[in-house]
Amino acid sequence: MTAPESGPPSLPTVLVLDADPLPRLGRLTGRARIEHADESTLAERLPSADVLLVWDFTSHAVRRAWPGEGPRPRWVHTASAGVDHLMCPELAISDTVVTNARGVFDQPIAEYVAALVLTMAKDLPRTWELQGQRTWRHRESMRVAGTRACVVGSGPIGRAIVATLEALGIGAALVGRTARTGVHGPEDLDLLLARADWVISVAPLTEQTYGMFDARRFGLMRPSARFINVGRGQLVVEDALVEALSRRWIAGAALDVFEHEPLTPGSPLWQVPNLIVSPHMSGDTIGWREELGTQFLELYDLWEAGRSLPNVVDKARGYVPGH
Amino acid sequence: MTAPESGPPSLPTVLVLDADPLPRLGRLTGRARIEHADESTLAERLPSADVLLVWDFTSHAVRRAWPGEGPRPRWVHTASAGVDHLMCPELAISDTVVTNARGVFDQPIAEYVAALVLTMAKDLPRTWELQGQRTWRHRESMRVAGTRACVVGSGPIGRAIVATLEALGIGAALVGRTARTGVHGPEDLDLLLARADWVISVAPLTEQTYGMFDARRFGLMRPSARFINVGRGQLVVEDALVEALSRRWIAGAALDVFEHEPLTPGSPLWQVPNLIVSPHMSGDTIGWREELGTQFLELYDLWEAGRSLPNVVDKARGYVPGH
Repeated sequence: MTAPESGPPSLPTVLVLDADPLPRLGRLTGRARIEHADESTLAERLPSADVLLVWDFTSHAVRRAWPGEGPRPRWVHTASAGVDHLMCPELAISDTVVTNARGVFDQPIAEYVAALVLTMAKDLPRTWELQGQRTWRHRESMRVAGTRACVVGSGPIGRAIVATLEALGIGAALVGRTARTGVHGPEDLDLLLARADWVISVAPLTEQTYGMFDARRFGLMRPSARFINVGRGQLVVEDALVEALSRRWIAGAALDVFEHEPLTPGSPLWQVPNLIVSPHMSGDTIGWREELGTQFLELYDLWEAGRSLPNVVDKARGYVPGH
Repeated sequence: MTAPESGPPSLPTVLVLDADPLPRLGRLTGRARIEHADESTLAERLPSADVLLVWDFTSHAVRRAWPGEGPRPRWVHTASAGVDHLMCPELAISDTVVTNARGVFDQPIAEYVAALVLTMAKDLPRTWELQGQRTWRHRESMRVAGTRACVVGSGPIGRAIVATLEALGIGAALVGRTARTGVHGPEDLDLLLARADWVISVAPLTEQTYGMFDARRFGLMRPSARFINVGRGQLVVEDALVEALSRRWIAGAALDVFEHEPLTPGSPLWQVPNLIVSPHMSGDTIGWREELGTQFLELYDLWEAGRSLPNVVDKARGYVPGH
């Protein structure tokens, strides 16, 4: 796996930071020299690579291995929407282009959020619990049409979430880094949080968003509010969320992402009242890896032809700027 | 509770087949004599009533107590969508008008079905199970956009389900008693079942629909199909469904209604693999009883004024005919 494949030395070198299963890059045969690295060999191989494919998007190795000076990849693509795991000052100031997997996760994550919203509204976790106890207990549930959501993060995933929630009759407000048509700026956030039945966290992880859901913000929310995080674990101060749930400042929460992943069996988060824990899977619908591989190949065609790439990350901001 | 309230003898008598909590009929003060009955007193009181409000829609007492000859209520209203629990030949051939709670449950049940569809697609029951075991196990889940549903029952609830599923990008076919614009007839049912990812049962219970989901029909479905019953328990041959799930003819099912309700703790249905059991609650969102009471009062205004009533059940067919 770590030996370079054969090919003329003039071919561009594509270095893959590996994860199982490997990407299917057969279409690049004769067009690129494919090399593989893991976290231990990345630093050594990076300087000779023209392109880096961050296929293991859970790894923080790129940040540690990025060459400060001298030769480095001209293009880095990460098979993820977030780029927080690879950004570092040296990469940010370099002229290396960084692209992400914009688009692949929009609809899947929107569906996942709708699933969590409806699941909590219809009290399905309690239904399962009662089924396990062979107990018939009728309850009234909540109608979602006419409720209000605040979606924090105005990229394509946030916008897909808004569209899906609105299709269910939920009034959804979108909050982004700056106010623009259809998007509230951060100055509206606290007011929107105070009115929302559903708070959805899907912002990119940046210096501005780190720990934004803290005790003060949970304290602003309604006692009936539910909080859902499908962005990055570090957007949330986990201890503050646990306290908000334990003291019933809010009615429930669902976390798909965590400060430290995977959660260890000893984590207290597994057993917090009214907290649903899932293993960072909101965007990963059947076929997602193939779709990520195909997306890289499509970008490679453009890069090879010297054309400009889509999905280029604004490295200072830490995400792909949109409308 | 059983003593007639005071009032001039010329007032119409409204007999309520009671259930807790009682309907709020204060608006009829001075306009009607309100009497109450339970299953044991219904037969005795029915002949002197002008109007029967079947507030306990789980009871089959009306069918047993209905007077064969002589005085009887001119109008029966049931606080339910289905009328199977009260229809009998004597009522069917009489000139008594029967109305139902058409409209109250449409959106709540549509949301409930969407909740079940998304829950099964995103594998949330397994997520809960793993959370209870403090186990982080990433899985791929299913994208619902682009999948196909077959909704059996073309009344307002069925149509609301179709609209909600289509808002999620699911292609939904509606099957009714007769083919018409936007509705397939029974002759298309088997073909539609064979192609569906989601089969939703919401037909009225009639002689034609009794036991319609039997071993043959489960055998037609795809191994990946999921079956959801929010209509009436007797639409489904429960043993056949259990066998279909156990033999993995289909991938999963959710039942909100059962042949015998409530399920007893000893019922084998609580523990069938890939079967979600809920206690007949799909339409019962917070405020539903108030909405049912208000609906009866609105119909009463019309009845008192001698105007024609909406939601009139075709007693031969056993449901309110629509478009």
